[in-house]
Amino acid sequence: MVIEKKQCIELINSHEEFLILSHEHPDGDTLGCAFALCEILRSMGKKRAFLCADEISADFSYMTDGFENDEVKDPFIVAVDVADARLLGSIAADYADRVDLGIDHHASNTLFAKDTYVEDRAAACEIIFELAKDMGYKSNEYFRNCIYTGISTDTGCFRYQNTSALTFRIAAELMEQGIDSKTINKLMFETKTKSFLELERLSRETLEYHFGDRCAIITITQDMYEKSGADEHQVYPITALPRQIEGVVVGAVMKEKPDGSYSISVRTDGDIDASEVCARLGGGGHKGAAGCHPECGCDEAKELLLASIKKSLDGLVK
Amino acid sequence: MVIEKKQCIELINSHEEFLILSHEHPDGDTLGCAFALCEILRSMGKKRAFLCADEISADFSYMTDGFENDEVKDPFIVAVDVADARLLGSIAADYADRVDLGIDHHASNTLFAKDTYVEDRAAACEIIFELAKDMGYKSNEYFRNCIYTGISTDTGCFRYQNTSALTFRIAAELMEQGIDSKTINKLMFETKTKSFLELERLSRETLEYHFGDRCAIITITQDMYEKSGADEHQVYPITALPRQIEGVVVGAVMKEKPDGSYSISVRTDGDIDASEVCARLGGGGHKGAAGCHPECGCDEAKELLLASIKKSLDGLVK
Repeated sequence: MVIEKKQCIELINSHEEFLILSHEHPDGDTLGCAFALCEILRSMGKKRAFLCADEISADFSYMTDGFENDEVKDPFIVAVDVADARLLGSIAADYADRVDLGIDHHASNTLFAKDTYVEDRAAACEIIFELAKDMGYKSNEYFRNCIYTGISTDTGCFRYQNTSALTFRIAAELMEQGIDSKTINKLMFETKTKSFLELERLSRETLEYHFGDRCAIITITQDMYEKSGADEHQVYPITALPRQIEGVVVGAVMKEKPDGSYSISVRTDGDIDASEVCARLGGGGHKGAAGCHPECGCDEAKELLLASIKKSLDGLVK
Repeated sequence: MVIEKKQCIELINSHEEFLILSHEHPDGDTLGCAFALCEILRSMGKKRAFLCADEISADFSYMTDGFENDEVKDPFIVAVDVADARLLGSIAADYADRVDLGIDHHASNTLFAKDTYVEDRAAACEIIFELAKDMGYKSNEYFRNCIYTGISTDTGCFRYQNTSALTFRIAAELMEQGIDSKTINKLMFETKTKSFLELERLSRETLEYHFGDRCAIITITQDMYEKSGADEHQVYPITALPRQIEGVVVGAVMKEKPDGSYSISVRTDGDIDASEVCARLGGGGHKGAAGCHPECGCDEAKELLLASIKKSLDGLVK
């Protein structure tokens, strides 16, 4: 059931033991929500534990250091920033049907939890921040750092179009009350690992242009992961690159999977619908960013991709 | 003379013809200030002209398109975001002694204008925004886009440490009233030219590590400018790269000048003082970013640089 903020607060107030779940491959927003919520609960004298299918990157140690799960027996289970039970990853089998409360910012939330409080905001951390205020929680810097992490990472540090006036207002409040934005920005936006740099360098050598330079494609092979020491979780910043090139309206990154097939990330510039390009290859997504996995080798996948892009480009001209 | 906001407003109110000066190699903040101020003046029925030593990048055409200088005879001359008369560039000879009013955010302003209104803020556009409010100016989207351009570019889109709660509050107001952040962010932060990409690729091949990987150096040669089609004004984003590498505390970019000498940009991570590193080579700057131009060839310049960095690193260990 979809619930309002007031009911969400009542649910939190009326329970004493909590298990907070983040989505798999946890990012700054799901972790920021989870640890900020844990901090609210701690301050209320409630017991709380955290669970996530995957390991947390050491970059987030300023949130996780010193955090220890309380022992919880029959906890009230809350999923934060989880749009679909499948995104719980390997713990979905155990928890998908047992989530009591979902707190999320994805309009596409599948409402898999018993109750879901969802608002279409730039980051789920914006929602946690406002919940906390309405609950009368008096924040400390740790809490504010968690919230800032979620907001800054989900907005590309206030650069993406999801950034709203409310996002800026919350950032102003956090900044006024004190956050360690220096450390967080450095970790989230300024630091590049050597393995990432090498993967980027190798992949950049494959950059190719099509359709009068309106389309750019980068290919990443398993061999490059091996040579660079990077893995596919580090590819994300590269997926944006082809579309950032002057004049390019469709950018794609083709990523070889261990079985030799290629998954494809497509980014576009508004006029071309990326989800349409990917839908023709069995995938989907949003207008500006979508993906597909045509389950074939590089040459065939690229041929399919180019044919689909051509269709969309032709549609544009008409 | 240093003046307050009220006097600054009085000076603007009491004149009818204005010449607005930007600093050489104009960036988003000096241009944002200039065109925002011109728009305020236009709305007041005053005449205004703009002058800058160097050409304005086409990226800023959303500010300059349709702008035409009024004819001004004996204008009141205002320099915006100009910390030192020398930064007027090639027009300094004609104007350095004739500036009536400086509006600036550099605490280091040399007070070369007859009157200077200076506040230590993230961007000079923050000051223009607040001036406009106090003047009772009713903003339009063009004005707000100018202000947003200055604020977002001078803060690296809200990522640098100069970003304050006030910066976020102004951004929130701009966003609420309406700005084209999509277009501006795309132009300022998302678009890479092919020539830049090629320069970046070529320069990345020169990346070398020193002192147990705590120092990283990239070298850019004249040959690379020629091969890539980029010029030295496009180097800026590359200067940040070496220090962004995990574990690196001092990053440097050595840039060959047409005469074969090398100018050096040094970026550090707080603990090492970049201005100290550069001062030993006759340069200067800030703690986190500084520069020098030792006027010698690559090998010698690098030797001098490494010796200076070693001294600072040794000082760190003690």
